[in-house]
Amino acid sequence: MKLHIEKKKLHLRHVWRIARGATEFKEYWFVRLEHEGISGFGEAAHNERYGESLDSIRDFLELARPLLAACTPHHFLPVKESIHALATGQDAAKAALDLALLDWVGKKYALPVHALFGLDPRTCPLSSYSIGIDSIEAVQQKVREAGDFPILKIKLGGEQDEETMRALREVTQKTVRVDANEGWHDRQLALEKIEWLAGLGVEFVEQPMPAGRLDDLIWLRQRSPLPLVADEDVKTA
Amino acid sequence: MKLHIEKKKLHLRHVWRIARGATEFKEYWFVRLEHEGISGFGEAAHNERYGESLDSIRDFLELARPLLAACTPHHFLPVKESIHALATGQDAAKAALDLALLDWVGKKYALPVHALFGLDPRTCPLSSYSIGIDSIEAVQQKVREAGDFPILKIKLGGEQDEETMRALREVTQKTVRVDANEGWHDRQLALEKIEWLAGLGVEFVEQPMPAGRLDDLIWLRQRSPLPLVADEDVKTA
Repeated sequence: MKLHIEKKKLHLRHVWRIARGATEFKEYWFVRLEHEGISGFGEAAHNERYGESLDSIRDFLELARPLLAACTPHHFLPVKESIHALATGQDAAKAALDLALLDWVGKKYALPVHALFGLDPRTCPLSSYSIGIDSIEAVQQKVREAGDFPILKIKLGGEQDEETMRALREVTQKTVRVDANEGWHDRQLALEKIEWLAGLGVEFVEQPMPAGRLDDLIWLRQRSPLPLVADEDVKTA
Repeated sequence: MKLHIEKKKLHLRHVWRIARGATEFKEYWFVRLEHEGISGFGEAAHNERYGESLDSIRDFLELARPLLAACTPHHFLPVKESIHALATGQDAAKAALDLALLDWVGKKYALPVHALFGLDPRTCPLSSYSIGIDSIEAVQQKVREAGDFPILKIKLGGEQDEETMRALREVTQKTVRVDANEGWHDRQLALEKIEWLAGLGVEFVEQPMPAGRLDDLIWLRQRSPLPLVADEDVKTA
């Protein structure tokens, strides 16, 4: 199959701000795998934290190019395994190729990927619509824009957590997930935040404290009234 | 989907003899899953050694019947998981339903199961044609009947191992796998058998000694010139 790659700059509708920083745009590599006149698409959303950059993604995709040229997506499992064995890490680039391979297979056989895997989409977990750290007006505007999404995820982890949650609850009673993105650096502070959130109909709290502080996370988990979900702390399945 | 089950008595062309016993026929339950006018087929080859009988298979299939009636094979993964959770063990019955489910999906989408799983059949391991313990004439006759099969598996584990291997090698130079079916009860004897087999172009030896004798197996593996493969010693993946 033939690999086509293209770097795209996506201008965000809203500035995307989390506890660690802010951005007005995202640059990603978009991948297209072409074979038998069918194109499968994928994208690489890299994470600099894990040693990924736009350059490292391009380098990995070029490394995979001859291997892709030599095989077809019909046998996607050995193809995936060979690609993944080309290098350690570079999971964003690998994910882009996985997505494109499975998109190709799904299009070829007119099967959505859930049917290819024999899954029932009615029982799959629901994802959420993420709302970044922003002004009260912007948070409320984003909640309105998320009208069709049954679950929201709100980014906390800073000085204005209380006013953000108040602004959110003024305009919606939907299920809300909280992502602190490592923003609470003191475990006592984190516990107080979580206890307060428990009274506001929050489903769970994601990565309350900096990654790598397992002792604090254990302490917190023994006391937290809400489920805690690791994100930055989890790198492998 | 609708479950149909039928017990069939299969009369074997040759008496089937291994180190533990002999039989002239096999009785199996055959399974048919019907949905949207398509039928998927499976069969349950039970093993009494693992607490399976014709009755226990029927009982398990009847236990699964209402669950099968309530769902479709489109979501085969959750269906399989629900069926497997109905009881521990009874793997022959579970395998029959797995086979029928995947046969249904393959027929529905006109995809062989290897393509459904994205596998390349050219790189899948080759199975072998099994030849039971028998007279010299019968062994040689079976080798001739196996003309289209590139790999043979010969059952050893008794008094006549040497003459069986001689008879086999008189009529074929194909790759041969040896299955002793726990037949060699002394580890020194097993080692001598394996050393002798190594000179006869044997690929590997399966279950040389009785299951459960891990110390003997370790001793043997440290000395064996051929790869050893566990069978009766392996019950879970």
